[in-house]
Amino acid sequence: MSLTVLYMSMSLDGFVTGPNEGPDNGLGDGGERLHEWIFQGVGDHPKEAVGGQGSVNGQIVDEAMSTGAVITGRGTFDAAKGWGGDHHNGVPIYVLSRNPAPAWAAEWPAVHYVSNLDAAVRDAKHAAGDKNVLVHGASVMVQRALTAGLLDELEIHLIPVLFGDGRRLFEHIGIEQRQLERIRVREGEGGVTHLRYRVRR
Amino acid sequence: MSLTVLYMSMSLDGFVTGPNEGPDNGLGDGGERLHEWIFQGVGDHPKEAVGGQGSVNGQIVDEAMSTGAVITGRGTFDAAKGWGGDHHNGVPIYVLSRNPAPAWAAEWPAVHYVSNLDAAVRDAKHAAGDKNVLVHGASVMVQRALTAGLLDELEIHLIPVLFGDGRRLFEHIGIEQRQLERIRVREGEGGVTHLRYRVRR
Repeated sequence: MSLTVLYMSMSLDGFVTGPNEGPDNGLGDGGERLHEWIFQGVGDHPKEAVGGQGSVNGQIVDEAMSTGAVITGRGTFDAAKGWGGDHHNGVPIYVLSRNPAPAWAAEWPAVHYVSNLDAAVRDAKHAAGDKNVLVHGASVMVQRALTAGLLDELEIHLIPVLFGDGRRLFEHIGIEQRQLERIRVREGEGGVTHLRYRVRR
Repeated sequence: MSLTVLYMSMSLDGFVTGPNEGPDNGLGDGGERLHEWIFQGVGDHPKEAVGGQGSVNGQIVDEAMSTGAVITGRGTFDAAKGWGGDHHNGVPIYVLSRNPAPAWAAEWPAVHYVSNLDAAVRDAKHAAGDKNVLVHGASVMVQRALTAGLLDELEIHLIPVLFGDGRRLFEHIGIEQRQLERIRVREGEGGVTHLRYRVRR
């Protein structure tokens, strides 16, 4: 069965961007620190050398890249310049947005703009088949998906850094105690800790 | 050499209390969820049964209780009713505060009120000898200790829960990217993940 899995890199103090994030500064000041892990360990432990297992970080990236569809918030989509229209392997991308495609993304056939999260999840799971759906986004996306009960799992890449400011992953998600089930912990190269949780319903 | 180690339980969304925390509601609404781990696993794996190792959670508690002094913020001290004047084993407690002892704590010989964090750390390390100093506190304490370079390590007990509101561990700590070094990850019973970081200088 296809699951929706939020994959996000977060500083220990809860930020998914650095300070002063904006349209021309998508990651915020110094925000690239959160994504260094993707390139750490991979070169040191090429898959060929360790029986196809690869580095921990490489395995996590591979897992994310084996999802069958992407759902993202509009802010995240714009900040990433829409990943050039292809997040990975040409899988369909569902952008949660009331607005139509921006001019720079008008020609991308894999990208769909949807205002209804239920419909986005239904379509994305259908498109993904037996693969999971990768969810990208911060406060608004997380809030809507959690509140609607549409987020199945969280994969948090916890980065050994304090930012002090930026955009929080969890903000305005509603005052309600939500229980999670920790289902995996992997110690990645470079100090990142990959934490996997199931959202309890 | 004695190190200052911040020991705090934190929800995945960064809170160390539940919502509506106040003088008569020190942990906030539902905040006791953050401390359940202290009692989880301990009963299941008594030390006698597993060669003196005990449960993971028990080991972490033992480690915290083997520190030789305590430094705490006034808010945390008051919320905990000063641990009755004895946090553990009668070790000295240094309360960061410009105010004198409250009436209910006037008779506690182990408790010292200090307005200067440098002096508190110096006195606490001296009192602790070759043991570490346990630091308890949230935003103000963490902010002051980090900014002054007086926090050596963090031991975060990351709880598999989202609170949505409460008092954040890391808030107003200053906009500066601070690198941490992950030095230990332990998967505790009940889904808590014990994360140990060294603060890089």
